[in-house]
Amino acid sequence: MSGINESWEAKAAAKRASILASIPQEWRLTKDEVEWAEQQRDLAKTAMPKFIDKLLDETEKAIVNLDSVPIVEGIKSKKFTAVQVAKAFCKTAAIAHQINPCLLEIFFDQALDRAKELDDYQEANGTTTGPLHGLPVSLKDQFNVKGVETCMAYVGWIGTQGGIDDPSKTFKIESQITKELLTCGAVLYCKTSLPQTVYIGETCNNIIGTTRNPHNKALTCGGSSGGEGALIALHGSTIGVGTDIGGSVRIPAAFCGIFSLKPTPSRISYKDAANTAPGQTTYSSTVGFLGTSIDGLDLIFKSILSTQPWLADPAVVPIPYRPTTLDSSKPLKIGVYRTDGVVNPHPPIRRGLGLFADAIKAAGHKVVEWNAPDPRQAYEVHESFMVCDGLYDIHQQLALSGEPLIPQLAESFKQFSPRELLDMHRLTLEGLAEEIKFNDYWNSTAHDDGQVVDAVIMPCAPSASLVPGKYRHLGYTRLINLLGYSAVVVPITKANKAIDVVDQDYEPLNEEDRLVWEDYDPELFDGAPVALQIVCRKFEEEKALAVAKELYSAFLKRMN
Amino acid sequence: MSGINESWEAKAAAKRASILASIPQEWRLTKDEVEWAEQQRDLAKTAMPKFIDKLLDETEKAIVNLDSVPIVEGIKSKKFTAVQVAKAFCKTAAIAHQINPCLLEIFFDQALDRAKELDDYQEANGTTTGPLHGLPVSLKDQFNVKGVETCMAYVGWIGTQGGIDDPSKTFKIESQITKELLTCGAVLYCKTSLPQTVYIGETCNNIIGTTRNPHNKALTCGGSSGGEGALIALHGSTIGVGTDIGGSVRIPAAFCGIFSLKPTPSRISYKDAANTAPGQTTYSSTVGFLGTSIDGLDLIFKSILSTQPWLADPAVVPIPYRPTTLDSSKPLKIGVYRTDGVVNPHPPIRRGLGLFADAIKAAGHKVVEWNAPDPRQAYEVHESFMVCDGLYDIHQQLALSGEPLIPQLAESFKQFSPRELLDMHRLTLEGLAEEIKFNDYWNSTAHDDGQVVDAVIMPCAPSASLVPGKYRHLGYTRLINLLGYSAVVVPITKANKAIDVVDQDYEPLNEEDRLVWEDYDPELFDGAPVALQIVCRKFEEEKALAVAKELYSAFLKRMN
Repeated sequence: MSGINESWEAKAAAKRASILASIPQEWRLTKDEVEWAEQQRDLAKTAMPKFIDKLLDETEKAIVNLDSVPIVEGIKSKKFTAVQVAKAFCKTAAIAHQINPCLLEIFFDQALDRAKELDDYQEANGTTTGPLHGLPVSLKDQFNVKGVETCMAYVGWIGTQGGIDDPSKTFKIESQITKELLTCGAVLYCKTSLPQTVYIGETCNNIIGTTRNPHNKALTCGGSSGGEGALIALHGSTIGVGTDIGGSVRIPAAFCGIFSLKPTPSRISYKDAANTAPGQTTYSSTVGFLGTSIDGLDLIFKSILSTQPWLADPAVVPIPYRPTTLDSSKPLKIGVYRTDGVVNPHPPIRRGLGLFADAIKAAGHKVVEWNAPDPRQAYEVHESFMVCDGLYDIHQQLALSGEPLIPQLAESFKQFSPRELLDMHRLTLEGLAEEIKFNDYWNSTAHDDGQVVDAVIMPCAPSASLVPGKYRHLGYTRLINLLGYSAVVVPITKANKAIDVVDQDYEPLNEEDRLVWEDYDPELFDGAPVALQIVCRKFEEEKALAVAKELYSAFLKRMN
Repeated sequence: MSGINESWEAKAAAKRASILASIPQEWRLTKDEVEWAEQQRDLAKTAMPKFIDKLLDETEKAIVNLDSVPIVEGIKSKKFTAVQVAKAFCKTAAIAHQINPCLLEIFFDQALDRAKELDDYQEANGTTTGPLHGLPVSLKDQFNVKGVETCMAYVGWIGTQGGIDDPSKTFKIESQITKELLTCGAVLYCKTSLPQTVYIGETCNNIIGTTRNPHNKALTCGGSSGGEGALIALHGSTIGVGTDIGGSVRIPAAFCGIFSLKPTPSRISYKDAANTAPGQTTYSSTVGFLGTSIDGLDLIFKSILSTQPWLADPAVVPIPYRPTTLDSSKPLKIGVYRTDGVVNPHPPIRRGLGLFADAIKAAGHKVVEWNAPDPRQAYEVHESFMVCDGLYDIHQQLALSGEPLIPQLAESFKQFSPRELLDMHRLTLEGLAEEIKFNDYWNSTAHDDGQVVDAVIMPCAPSASLVPGKYRHLGYTRLINLLGYSAVVVPITKANKAIDVVDQDYEPLNEEDRLVWEDYDPELFDGAPVALQIVCRKFEEEKALAVAKELYSAFLKRMN
């Protein structure tokens, strides 16, 4: 444990160094290699393949190009061993972190031991231990793993258990979902970075600095589950666990060009995971998943639910996994939410939405406009709850070490007085009224043909990633949190400066819209992933996954 | 609408008179009859049968002695008509109200018209309209019915919509559950009394006064769904809808000797129903049912869920009715919670629990002691949330008319400052920790034989009803609200002065226990119903009903 009187800078530097030190020497990049990587715009396309090619053998290279399901199947059929798979992802995660800091914990030894045990079990018993047998799963650094630190990006938590310096507890706690993943046979090997406070859509902290967008180093990887987004996009993981209270699973998935599932809160256990302002439960953060494929999301979701999480965690609603097969004889009815009327999406996002809607229509599904109610009241309610404690909790954690707010929060996250309880009771009722308003609208979509909308496709954010410090409009994700809906993010295309030109005649809707609009620079955003949310109602995770799969395969078919 | 400057007494008197005036002349009791009834100790045994005999014909008499399921079956098979059934219960409810004020709204005309429509439908179509076709269902006066007032026992709400004097809304709102009941074919005919504030375990307000225990006029019917309890025990309804945030469905069911089901909050819709401090949603009130039989509870619960309430109300968890058949080859494992260690139950309750446990054991089930964690912290958290607004909402409603608090609340319900938000965040975490503690204990019951407890049997209150004003210990019901568990109340026996004697050597556990103990008077309580809760985990309503049915039939078998 670090000395109590050490400066926050020294503590952070020590942790930063110890993360790097936990990478085996033979997987280290040279100083020159790291510097060369620093010059590359698109790490996913250039630096990553080069270093993978250098450090991984042919089998390992093949493995890290697979999605979660083929990996599990490959181990089950003995095409490769759990140790081979673990080693491939440990190496790749190590490379990713060296060229784009995204890990707060590395425990490759523990992972390789575990993988060996799984192989031995399979060898001895002729069967696997569970539905995720041998699958490496990365975890956002809010989840506790025995023997491993959780600092949640706070310098003051280093060496402690969530800021509490009690050696009887330190590193002995295991989050419920960690238990469940282990029960299912997963291999845990690293924990990923997140922004200081967890309350921002990019990933930067005073410990390992900024995690960049793997496809464009000038942009952010998104946040708060940004380490997950970057790691997965760089092939250092096929599936990871994040959290989402205002978009924190969906934004990094969208910005990094991968897939994600945000369930309704209380579907997946949050027990014994660290969190910001955990006593605010009116709009709760929810555990979600980021991955390289919809099948992978479905696999981890189904596997976790197979452990009956509600028996161990009374906060989980006892809804088992419900296998969902769409009726292929009946077209889906999909709402398209093109704009929230507050901030219009940038040209790449508008184009992506159009491409996807056209593909859905071409596949024979019904596509209708989703002319939802004005969301501004909903935004305000959600925002009020996020900061209702006057940022008390955040400042408590910062004070443990004396670290300052990161620059992008320095002004906006100053502490203030907590809100009045009666105010929050009033806002609770307003939030419920908003939920009902949107739900009534959803029901009203049956007015013409008797069929309600099955899902809504919409932006995750107004832009395809962002320059750090410029996250101006959280509405597109925040709304879905307020409504408690389930959502799957799918990557659609990439921003293209040749097509996504600036509309010189554009008339901004308001000041916020003007600022966001001015942020659009075709050159800067060129190549940034464009993704969309596929949104279903509360607790419709299985349906959201099934619809996403159907729509995405229709989309791919049309694109090819 | 009453004049705005009228005194609260005049407004209350006018409403009281108008309730009586809505009873048809031919169903009125004479002044002498009412005075004679006033002299009877046990209205259910003496006054009620006498007046039923006078005012109901033979078919009607048979009808009001049936439970809900045979009534629905009788209408379906055309043994009697919906009009006959409606008339029988309207008459009986009218009698009950005259000898024991329990109704805040009477709308018999609307009910008889509705019943006629249902009969016509059945005649024309050869089939019924839904699973509750023709069943009279009484509603606690928190639920809105079109064309009918909801005053929730506040004088200031009379003539308005929940205290808001907006003629465009007044009496035009329909609670979600009202819609669902009508969809299922129910006949609505009256709304039942509740205590001022809704936050007390007896039923008394400034409008119709006190509702007494049908089995012993010196005692209370319980509360807050006390009008339901009294009406059903007096055969004026077979099934009614109440609400429960600290015991308000279970206490009147227990005190009146009937059955009830308290679901986990968010299983049944509360949408567009009136409530106290509705912005406090950490521990929500839940809609529940009171009735004359477990089958009736099961019928209404299943029927309501068949309407898919979650589609209309996003606050409802989408768990459809899950038919539950117990494995008859495997004994149930039942925990017995004899005391909470804070206040010991009176002799009649202890005897009832013993009788029930013995019967369960004799039927071949496993019976174990439920040595749950100390509940005091849980009680404190729950209590804190109930009054966290400093009783602001209650005093807002009282101020509308200037009515005073009822005497039993005059001291304890004085307004105070709302709690601090950060305090409530801290208490939220404490409550979640309590839930986990009790859940861990529940899981630990598998330690000996690998089987966790299926249900826990326990008191509803330390006593078999109470003298009004003496509700001292809400722990036995409050705990179940904090834990969110599902519970079924079953009547077991009656207090018997010959058996349930005072234990002169009793050493009270503490001051509260001493006061409760001193309240026990074998003569006074003689004949008061003794009931128990059968408690299952969160969202296990179907299991709770199935277990209750199994255990109760084993109990009846042993008693006969």
